[in-house]
Amino acid sequence: MVSNTLYLVPNFIGEFNKEYLPKRTLDHTYQLTHFIVEKEKTARAFLKAIEHPTHQNDFVFIELDKHNDYAGFKAFFNKHISSHSIGVLSEAGLPAIADPGSEVVKYAHSKGVTVVPLSGSSSIFLALMASGMDGQHFQFNGYLPIDARDRMIALKDMEIRSRKATQLFMEAPYRNNQFLEFLIKNLQKDTQLCVAVDIEKEGEETIISKPIKDWKVNELELHKKPAIFIIG
Amino acid sequence: MVSNTLYLVPNFIGEFNKEYLPKRTLDHTYQLTHFIVEKEKTARAFLKAIEHPTHQNDFVFIELDKHNDYAGFKAFFNKHISSHSIGVLSEAGLPAIADPGSEVVKYAHSKGVTVVPLSGSSSIFLALMASGMDGQHFQFNGYLPIDARDRMIALKDMEIRSRKATQLFMEAPYRNNQFLEFLIKNLQKDTQLCVAVDIEKEGEETIISKPIKDWKVNELELHKKPAIFIIG
Repeated sequence: MVSNTLYLVPNFIGEFNKEYLPKRTLDHTYQLTHFIVEKEKTARAFLKAIEHPTHQNDFVFIELDKHNDYAGFKAFFNKHISSHSIGVLSEAGLPAIADPGSEVVKYAHSKGVTVVPLSGSSSIFLALMASGMDGQHFQFNGYLPIDARDRMIALKDMEIRSRKATQLFMEAPYRNNQFLEFLIKNLQKDTQLCVAVDIEKEGEETIISKPIKDWKVNELELHKKPAIFIIG
Repeated sequence: MVSNTLYLVPNFIGEFNKEYLPKRTLDHTYQLTHFIVEKEKTARAFLKAIEHPTHQNDFVFIELDKHNDYAGFKAFFNKHISSHSIGVLSEAGLPAIADPGSEVVKYAHSKGVTVVPLSGSSSIFLALMASGMDGQHFQFNGYLPIDARDRMIALKDMEIRSRKATQLFMEAPYRNNQFLEFLIKNLQKDTQLCVAVDIEKEGEETIISKPIKDWKVNELELHKKPAIFIIG
């Protein structure tokens, strides 16, 4: 009986350069030809950047359905897992973290298929390491609500929790500048805020961590740049 | 003026094999000779395993004081940062996550020194990826209290929170087997439990994720093995 595996393959977060991935991650990925991905185009660019030995015509992809109808990937998984190991690849960073890939992993476990996570970069965790805040207790909250009143309630709630556990969150990149202004205006003066921008982008990576009282509006240009926000 | 940097250097979590680290991480680490570490002995073993080109006699270390007296590393930092970049290295995995390194990072920020996190493996995040649970909202809780009553309260509290955000935690490895039994006996039957053991240890890595009702006491031997526990 063939024992195939679901591999969780990290994508790049900054540079498209295979030096940012461990040799072990690359070697496992070079064995894979079947992938469940967020977008086929990005997946092909990734496989090209790591110099995957397989010809692009020979890859088999299915895109993860964003409409919560998972019939597509389940049929793909069941069709191929008896003959091939399968990779899960996200748009950036570690699959199944801050993206919809966890549904695939859950399905693999329910089928008794071995799941192997491959090491790579995550802007969330690199930002947490570099924040100088408590790394022994922390919480990732994803996106705050968009509605102004709900957003304020969520922020105040996070700030209270930040006294016991570091709180991480994100914003849609085109709203980053306004979001930073919102944080500076509404957090307590002694709350520590870390903003980590363009992680692993050579010459662009910027990580600032200091109390709100020392932050100035507009001191950091964040428009459309990938950023992680952390308070503690 | 010299612009030196604090590099956060990941240690191994399973195999002591440089194929588990990105080339970029290795290349930056090869430039460093001054390190703030948890234990000098482990640090030397790591630097040997990655084939650091510097002779062991030429490294300069300071051990992070576990007694919350940080005078030692601050003096070391201030003495060397004008002439050298400095690395922070923990016992395993990413520094400043689930270890005391964050104090060093905080100090560097307070001195205006650039902090660069280098990518590597973390058993916490590899386990989260492989759990099949919500990776868009999660919380790392470190260790549960030791006192039996406090421990039960903490567990019940985490289980309630696990309906909204995946909950991760650890135990001292020599108590792992009893801890798993405690979880199986006290969590709800439909709560999903993932136990990830010996992550990145070749041939030993085991990741099981299923509802409590399907877990059996003693089905997994965890004694003295590094393990991450996750509920959702």
